[in-house]
Amino acid sequence: MADTVPHLKLTYEGANKVLAAAVAKANAMGVPQCIVVADDGGHMLAFARMDGAKVLSIDSATMKAKTAASSRVPTGGIPDAVLEGRLVAATQGKLTNLKGGFPIVVDGKVIGAIGVGSGTGEQDIEVALAGLAALSGAKTAF
Amino acid sequence: MADTVPHLKLTYEGANKVLAAAVAKANAMGVPQCIVVADDGGHMLAFARMDGAKVLSIDSATMKAKTAASSRVPTGGIPDAVLEGRLVAATQGKLTNLKGGFPIVVDGKVIGAIGVGSGTGEQDIEVALAGLAALSGAKTAF
Amino acid sequence: MADTVPHLKLTYEGANKVLAAAVAKANAMGVPQCIVVADDGGHMLAFARMDGAKVLSIDSATMKAKTAASSRVPTGGIPDAVLEGRLVAATQGKLTNLKGGFPIVVDGKVIGAIGVGSGTGEQDIEVALAGLAALSGAKTAF
Amino acid sequence: MADTVPHLKLTYEGANKVLAAAVAKANAMGVPQCIVVADDGGHMLAFARMDGAKVLSIDSATMKAKTAASSRVPTGGIPDAVLEGRLVAATQGKLTNLKGGFPIVVDGKVIGAIGVGSGTGEQDIEVALAGLAALSGAKTAF
Repeated sequence: MADTVPHLKLTYEGANKVLAAAVAKANAMGVPQCIVVADDGGHMLAFARMDGAKVLSIDSATMKAKTAASSRVPTGGIPDAVLEGRLVAATQGKLTNLKGGFPIVVDGKVIGAIGVGSGTGEQDIEVALAGLAALSGAKTAF
Repeated sequence: MADTVPHLKLTYEGANKVLAAAVAKANAMGVPQCIVVADDGGHMLAFARMDGAKVLSIDSATMKAKTAASSRVPTGGIPDAVLEGRLVAATQGKLTNLKGGFPIVVDGKVIGAIGVGSGTGEQDIEVALAGLAALSGAKTAF
Repeated sequence: MADTVPHLKLTYEGANKVLAAAVAKANAMGVPQCIVVADDGGHMLAFARMDGAKVLSIDSATMKAKTAASSRVPTGGIPDAVLEGRLVAATQGKLTNLKGGFPIVVDGKVIGAIGVGSGTGEQDIEVALAGLAALSGAKTAF
Repeated sequence: MADTVPHLKLTYEGANKVLAAAVAKANAMGVPQCIVVADDGGHMLAFARMDGAKVLSIDSATMKAKTAASSRVPTGGIPDAVLEGRLVAATQGKLTNLKGGFPIVVDGKVIGAIGVGSGTGEQDIEVALAGLAALSGAKTAF
């Protein structure tokens, strides 16, 4: 393998597009949300706390985005509570198995993640997927 | 929606009125309590640790108030222990599902929260509701 | 004083308007920034990390917004390094004296704060003030 | 020495008397304050955040009370910055040398402490001393 490989980088403009689409979906659903769009290192690029969303969901949505950026798969898929507990402990609480975090995948490359929180798990997923759908070429089926 | 919307702010005088009523109720019950009244951001406005109340309930009562201010509903309503554990972990322990935290709601607006701890969950609830009842127009049925 | 007093609440729409104006200013200056808009409790409402802005400025911009929301004055005004060190220690690092944080003041009421970081202190101030200027009625001279 | 010795315990009623006097003084001065009254273990008994006091002063006032309860002398007396730094580090940041914390001393016994923050150091001291003066027999000259 070469020393470096081509990659794609999610811009703030791209992140903001994902964010705006997710906000629009949450508005249409009548479910206020905290929405984080992060880069492939899990670091926040864009954020919205909609009117009525929970303050503590700032934390959980952020952790969903970080977990999805790291694992490259949607959050919520750890099937076993014992394994989940070990993973949470081994990362000193940086990982969450709450639903609502998704990697942003374009051309097979993980370029970032979205994390949504303040609704039910299913509502969070719906809003996150609406965000992904706004980014040309982003994977929306997992 | 507009850039700003009319809101209400809980004053220290109002917070102290809620606190005093909760203290009086706890005295009448013979159950010493730690009682926190917070603003809508979850930041403490007024506090009492009655004679005999537990020192560690300073922490739990504070967390109940912060959780209720964030979620805008009474604490203790997360029905599932697995979900509860995940929410606690994802907020790095900032959220509690212990009973005894209530939002302070006036004219449909959440303007603060009360958190009570050191008794049983049911005693904590009774004291918190007595605090709410002292504030003119505050919601006391949840 | 009454139990409650009339207040104003910064909406997500208002916060996003402040954010967008600050981003536009930073773009015009050619200085990528991390920009946080928070409510009056210091809790994040809207955020942007522009292309090229520092990852660690996510933290410093957030702390500038929290400090300005708490103190109700622009950050950077503590004149004495010894006092600054004591205040930072006594808040366990929650307070910053870096320039670039401003309260959002409308009708004499502090309804939120903006924190900007990744440029020089003077650049951060310039971007923050451009954000404030976008909000109708917000104070821009301190 | 005997296995146990007579002591005095500050009640919530006593703590609340100190708090109310300090609040009244701060009101008269027109300086909103965060005021903590703690027991001899440094654990909070009573608290007020007056309208306009800084949110982050919740932390600093609490730390002033804890420091004064522990050291049994007013805070702010460490004369040497190097020593201060070592003490702060050696207590993992639990000690403050900010002015505004005083032990509550009755009959030569330290039974608690008051910590005041949000004003200047001198204002904080003035409010703390007014609180002490409300408690019969409490030392007010240091």
